[in-house]
Amino acid sequence: MRVAFIVEYDGTDYAGWQIQKNDITVQEKIEQALLTLGKGHITVFGAGRTDSGVHAKGQCGHFDIESNIPAEKFAFILNSCLPRDIRVKKSWEAEGDFHCRFSAKGKRYIYRIVNAPHASALMNRFTMHVPEKLDVDLMRVAAEEIKGTHDFAAFCAAGSSVKTTVRTVSRLDVEKENDIISIIVEGNGFLYNMVRIIAGTLIEVGKGKKTPRQVKEIVEGKVRKEAGMTADAKGLTMDEVFY
Amino acid sequence: MRVAFIVEYDGTDYAGWQIQKNDITVQEKIEQALLTLGKGHITVFGAGRTDSGVHAKGQCGHFDIESNIPAEKFAFILNSCLPRDIRVKKSWEAEGDFHCRFSAKGKRYIYRIVNAPHASALMNRFTMHVPEKLDVDLMRVAAEEIKGTHDFAAFCAAGSSVKTTVRTVSRLDVEKENDIISIIVEGNGFLYNMVRIIAGTLIEVGKGKKTPRQVKEIVEGKVRKEAGMTADAKGLTMDEVFY
Repeated sequence: MRVAFIVEYDGTDYAGWQIQKNDITVQEKIEQALLTLGKGHITVFGAGRTDSGVHAKGQCGHFDIESNIPAEKFAFILNSCLPRDIRVKKSWEAEGDFHCRFSAKGKRYIYRIVNAPHASALMNRFTMHVPEKLDVDLMRVAAEEIKGTHDFAAFCAAGSSVKTTVRTVSRLDVEKENDIISIIVEGNGFLYNMVRIIAGTLIEVGKGKKTPRQVKEIVEGKVRKEAGMTADAKGLTMDEVFY
Repeated sequence: MRVAFIVEYDGTDYAGWQIQKNDITVQEKIEQALLTLGKGHITVFGAGRTDSGVHAKGQCGHFDIESNIPAEKFAFILNSCLPRDIRVKKSWEAEGDFHCRFSAKGKRYIYRIVNAPHASALMNRFTMHVPEKLDVDLMRVAAEEIKGTHDFAAFCAAGSSVKTTVRTVSRLDVEKENDIISIIVEGNGFLYNMVRIIAGTLIEVGKGKKTPRQVKEIVEGKVRKEAGMTADAKGLTMDEVFY
């Protein structure tokens, strides 16, 4: 049967989702936990490859297994073997043609910034610290220039090989609560580092280093080096995958 | 001059606030950071001694120093030397008769519980996981029995030596948002482990193992072993000190 699951992880101590030769990853930890079932190696798929240090609240994954164990029980079995910074939130039996990556209609990411003179000790693992006061209203105006269907070549890490860099950002909200600014991004697909480059660009707008009009030109210009820096991995959380 | 400060810390990796012989503590880390000023050893005082593993969002401290540095700058100086899980949020010049502990009028603590079948990876450091469904309404009724001025002997860790175990709990709210239950406790003073024993007792009420009427009898009976367990340190955060 095909078992789908939702997994939450604190990515601080992991080299991202996908298995690497010389680093510890989330996929590897889940595959190791499945080994305890005595069925040999079972490959686990994920909806998105989060980068090193990036977190997930609602990563979705799946694997195939021959077993009489009810699919709902796998969340408990996996959690009994996984480290505490990786928690399966639920598991269920999926249709045979469900694929966590290819069946996904979209994803939501949240990028969190502590905008205060001093960083936060409690939120340190999950936020980027920007001490300079950010103009949230300007960030919102610039976000409108990024939202929509565009060629996002300017927001894609160099060296990435994809057929097309056209993507649709269906939501790009900038919210502020106390010292925390959250950039909420939804879309049907994302280029490599795209959300972190969007966050880095909006941070530069907030600092007054780029204008919303310049952001419009950056989108149209399609040149990576014109956009902002790639914001720190630790501020990014994959919030939810839509099906 | 006397410099007061607010400090936030993730207590996971510390043996509490107060200096210990063979363990790393928050007070020690701040005193070490002050050493870099070249003024020799400066003792740092804290409003409350948080236990090993307990966090603070608004611990207040003070120290005396002869210096021409504006008091506001000490937050920046300390943060440049402190580990990232300890952050001074602000510093200011206090009156000479201000004492972070003895001038305090009260404190607010928040105890956080993840009440869901599976724990949270992202909130793991700051929450206790209770998988059994808790009855929040019953917990609120029981909280009313604890609120007020009582002899809290039943809610004080054994072996504690204090003149009186009478204290006033001025606020004891149980709030729920999604899977997170927060127990918010305010009072003018707290006995050793008092907030964690209150949390442990309310959790037993939520599970149906104790009734609100029994909690009333526990308060009146003043016997520690009748009250609930001491809830995990990691769920507790010292939220604010009132002056």
